[in-house]
Amino acid sequence: MQAVYNIAEICAQMGITDVVLSPGSRCAPLTISFARHPRIQVRTVPDERAAAFIGLGLAQSQRRAVALVCTSGTAGLNYAPAVAEAYFQQIPLVVFTADRPPEWIDQLDGQTIRQTDLYGAHAKGTFTFPADTSHPDAKWHSARIVSEAINLAQQFPAGPVQVNVPLREPFYPKAGEELVFETVRVIQETGSQPMLLGPELVALRHALRQTPRVLVVAGQHHHTDALLLALRQFTAAYQIPVVGDVIANLHQPVGANYDLRTAPLSKQDVFMAVPERGLKEALRPDLLITFGQSLISKALKLYLRDSQPTQHWHVQEAGPVADTFKSLTRIIRLEPTSFFELLVATDYSLFGGLTSAEDTAAAKGIGTTDNIKSPERAAGSTPSVPPPRLTWPTSGWALTEKDAAAKAAYLTPWYKAESWAKEFLAEFLARPDQPFNEFTAFHHALRHLTDGTALHLANSMAVRYANILGLPGNRRVEVFANRGTSGIDGCTSTAVGAALAQPDRPVVLLTGDVAFFYDRNAFWQNYPTPNLRVILFNNHAGGIFRLIDGPRQQPELEEFFETHQPLTAENTCRDFGLRYFTASTFAELKLALSAFFAPVSGAALLEITTDSATNAAFFEEYRKAVRTSFS
Amino acid sequence: MQAVYNIAEICAQMGITDVVLSPGSRCAPLTISFARHPRIQVRTVPDERAAAFIGLGLAQSQRRAVALVCTSGTAGLNYAPAVAEAYFQQIPLVVFTADRPPEWIDQLDGQTIRQTDLYGAHAKGTFTFPADTSHPDAKWHSARIVSEAINLAQQFPAGPVQVNVPLREPFYPKAGEELVFETVRVIQETGSQPMLLGPELVALRHALRQTPRVLVVAGQHHHTDALLLALRQFTAAYQIPVVGDVIANLHQPVGANYDLRTAPLSKQDVFMAVPERGLKEALRPDLLITFGQSLISKALKLYLRDSQPTQHWHVQEAGPVADTFKSLTRIIRLEPTSFFELLVATDYSLFGGLTSAEDTAAAKGIGTTDNIKSPERAAGSTPSVPPPRLTWPTSGWALTEKDAAAKAAYLTPWYKAESWAKEFLAEFLARPDQPFNEFTAFHHALRHLTDGTALHLANSMAVRYANILGLPGNRRVEVFANRGTSGIDGCTSTAVGAALAQPDRPVVLLTGDVAFFYDRNAFWQNYPTPNLRVILFNNHAGGIFRLIDGPRQQPELEEFFETHQPLTAENTCRDFGLRYFTASTFAELKLALSAFFAPVSGAALLEITTDSATNAAFFEEYRKAVRTSFS
Repeated sequence: MQAVYNIAEICAQMGITDVVLSPGSRCAPLTISFARHPRIQVRTVPDERAAAFIGLGLAQSQRRAVALVCTSGTAGLNYAPAVAEAYFQQIPLVVFTADRPPEWIDQLDGQTIRQTDLYGAHAKGTFTFPADTSHPDAKWHSARIVSEAINLAQQFPAGPVQVNVPLREPFYPKAGEELVFETVRVIQETGSQPMLLGPELVALRHALRQTPRVLVVAGQHHHTDALLLALRQFTAAYQIPVVGDVIANLHQPVGANYDLRTAPLSKQDVFMAVPERGLKEALRPDLLITFGQSLISKALKLYLRDSQPTQHWHVQEAGPVADTFKSLTRIIRLEPTSFFELLVATDYSLFGGLTSAEDTAAAKGIGTTDNIKSPERAAGSTPSVPPPRLTWPTSGWALTEKDAAAKAAYLTPWYKAESWAKEFLAEFLARPDQPFNEFTAFHHALRHLTDGTALHLANSMAVRYANILGLPGNRRVEVFANRGTSGIDGCTSTAVGAALAQPDRPVVLLTGDVAFFYDRNAFWQNYPTPNLRVILFNNHAGGIFRLIDGPRQQPELEEFFETHQPLTAENTCRDFGLRYFTASTFAELKLALSAFFAPVSGAALLEITTDSATNAAFFEEYRKAVRTSFS
Repeated sequence: MQAVYNIAEICAQMGITDVVLSPGSRCAPLTISFARHPRIQVRTVPDERAAAFIGLGLAQSQRRAVALVCTSGTAGLNYAPAVAEAYFQQIPLVVFTADRPPEWIDQLDGQTIRQTDLYGAHAKGTFTFPADTSHPDAKWHSARIVSEAINLAQQFPAGPVQVNVPLREPFYPKAGEELVFETVRVIQETGSQPMLLGPELVALRHALRQTPRVLVVAGQHHHTDALLLALRQFTAAYQIPVVGDVIANLHQPVGANYDLRTAPLSKQDVFMAVPERGLKEALRPDLLITFGQSLISKALKLYLRDSQPTQHWHVQEAGPVADTFKSLTRIIRLEPTSFFELLVATDYSLFGGLTSAEDTAAAKGIGTTDNIKSPERAAGSTPSVPPPRLTWPTSGWALTEKDAAAKAAYLTPWYKAESWAKEFLAEFLARPDQPFNEFTAFHHALRHLTDGTALHLANSMAVRYANILGLPGNRRVEVFANRGTSGIDGCTSTAVGAALAQPDRPVVLLTGDVAFFYDRNAFWQNYPTPNLRVILFNNHAGGIFRLIDGPRQQPELEEFFETHQPLTAENTCRDFGLRYFTASTFAELKLALSAFFAPVSGAALLEITTDSATNAAFFEEYRKAVRTSFS
């Protein structure tokens, strides 16, 4: 069993600090070794579906791998939804599934299924721990695959891996027996940073300067100041608009150099719904540059698919790339922050012997380095360190006057549309005599978020509302959402994991009733989350179906699409000791929000009760107003 | 979309009457067509994990295939635990997973995962519905695979199949549009019954007569009167003991010819725990005959592995066979009821020209038909109909006096052990001054079951307690348990499905707190189950871990194995409108059981609260008493 005990030691040496396990007998050797390891924090969660999403929330917040441990049988299958989400959201999870030894599979023993490659196409890899480690080679193998699994999980694009661990009895050390962690060798992996060679970079700069209609669209991405700064510099330098959904995390203020003219745009869900053809034509890009994962804004997505840019570059350092807009023409293998930093860099020593004059010549449209597929010149001189953080460039940097004018002609309608959308929304949400409805209530909730909040948006209406309404621009609010698979199945558990990971930070979950009750077992564990605040928008149904034309017109709407459900969260709060607040009018909401967000310790839930039909009617008014108000 | 609508019609023609679906937009065409089909009853359940187990409960009760329908994305992954249980418990489920069309996979669209072959080794097959059925061949294909999938699910051994259905927009018929079900051709499958040829049968009879120590052990099996009768006749004819766990469903009374000397044995969990070597030796079989699925009794399982019978025949009509006792020597391809019926049959016309004299010669030990691999004689004359139900044979039928004496010498200690165990248990459970504990409380609950009950036993302690304590022999109580994978994840949902399937029958679930709270979403749907009674044994922990030596001795017991949890079911009952009863003393229990089982309509839950340490101490007393009381 020593080789199994060593798993905990290897994980610790490889930087894993958190393990989520679910009780079981077959997994006892793993449980005991992780529980006794001094550098690992273990939490136990009985419902494996919730456990895996809690692990995902921990890994998502900490930006490092988390290990899961479960017993044999269907336990591991309950991990599957979180494993798929981790796969598509690129979150490193190392899943240890205890198993019977191979000779006992399919022999009618209890809790025995076919665990090899349990997650199929949704794991980055699957490893089988040796059932017998008495031979020295088997012991070497056993340690090696744990290193390999952890490295694989963390390599870009990160994701889940399975290590299936067949275990023979006895599972338990003798009473009082001390467990020894051996000194084990681990295989650390030093990740490298891809770089572009000088001529390639010049060609990209050249194309950017010479193409009047360039648009940057950010998909889901975690927050980093470096990326925000690089994007601001990029917009300033090239006069190119950057558009990002709320899950792209581009909305935060960055540094003191706050310049509204370089702020990324975020109101696309509003202005893209305007049916005016002139506007659509004005916004059409010739060159689309994207990075990150998925978009929420269906309007933007359909618009881009429809507008068919001549070129579409996607920036992603490794891994398969989606052709989301049916227009992909070039994949650029850089980390997005490096890409934008390099495009505005003025330190020519980075560019493999390229001179400022050559770049400037390109800028003037007389460059000779168009062929970005010929990197010979710089061969052997790839810089080995990432460039230093850059200083703020002057607006219009490196653009000729003519180029700058063409760029401005494209940039201006984007900023105009954005500012129209902001004004329209502010006015619309302030409409007097509106009925109590979740759209406006959601807006008020967002306005109350405090600085430093980790905001979790559940699927599917919460994240959509937030994308329309936007976040307060003057607060550091980081947004998380399970948009890898867009499931409702683990949104609460993910937020609970986030709250456990960052006890000193407010973690706020905005969710709907179907997602909330689906994943109530998120709270069924014994670890306090005093920093967690849940705002539950309860319309007693999957209200989203009433907002879509198709199902709204079917006789099956109420029973089979909305699926009316009568629950309130009061009993759930009672069960799990959450402080419970309610609101079903704007006046109540105002009072409740202040009390709810007060810096009092102790997890709390605010249930905002609305009526599904009223919500649908009010949202329809909003949609009508968008279509008719643009000027 | 017509080809998709036709799925409902094909299902109806193939005998599917019940569909469980979970709300979603991608699956709307399936939802609408099933909901509008006049011969199909559709129920909607939001949590797919619960939905699939509810479907499993329906299929298990009705003994025919049930269809599941879910939307794209992780919805289908939440089915995985129930799909695995269906696979190993051999329950036919036809799983329709809505999907995006193939070109949109991995393109960062929402609720899109890799759904082809989603259940891997735990589905009998996976089918891909054509994305485009405009070509007539594609339409033929689309209808054909639905027939094929349903047939495959139902072929022995039955199990789950997946039909992945890629769907392009629009998903919804126009408002008011009527849906037409076309006349479709389906491919019905007429299953046949395997039979043995005369000489083979004679050889088996011969071996049975001549082997003094023959034991029949039944694994999990659904209840049929025909099987019970055949087993009774078999024991009467050959004087061979039949042993079955509570999940083998051999405990019911059968007909008027009630003869205790032929009743199957069920107290193996008690008497196999007696450490007396003489008893063990007396019970040792030379020929072991098994049928059905898994055993619960670990003591019996280990004993049989240890005692290594010279021959082990397993009776199963088709499919892979487990070597559960490391002793399998022959697989007999018959349905178990046929097997036992044929062995006692006196109608020689069934046996392909064999005469009574030849069989009798074999019985006298002078047979010439030993070679059961030579069926030439009977070639071409295999009977094509199963034999008629048989009349009750006389005890000792077809045994010579010498054989009968040898048989009795082996049979007697089995019946003695059984009757000792019964007396021991009755005495032990009546011990005065015992503390309130779940073992005795469980016994009282079992005594209160009414005639005709469908009893669902949750994993893992409920089913174990029931196997030790046994069921009242004078009532028709049919036992169900998810012993395919022995998971706790869907026990409640399965019982809910059973209650929906048989509204006129009492459905009783006995469960522990971890299994119960794990699967609370079983109740989160809008279909009443007035016939459902849940008895929850709440020891606020996974009490099983305190009953096992290994974990009991570890410092991690309470946090990582038992995982103490403070919930009571009161709030859950409030949420879902279950009538709520409680008991925490024997006096309260007595009162509560009467009220709880009263024939009042409306689902009810009785929470029996015990202390985990007290339970462990009392159960340890029981185990000590078993070890020392045998005489």
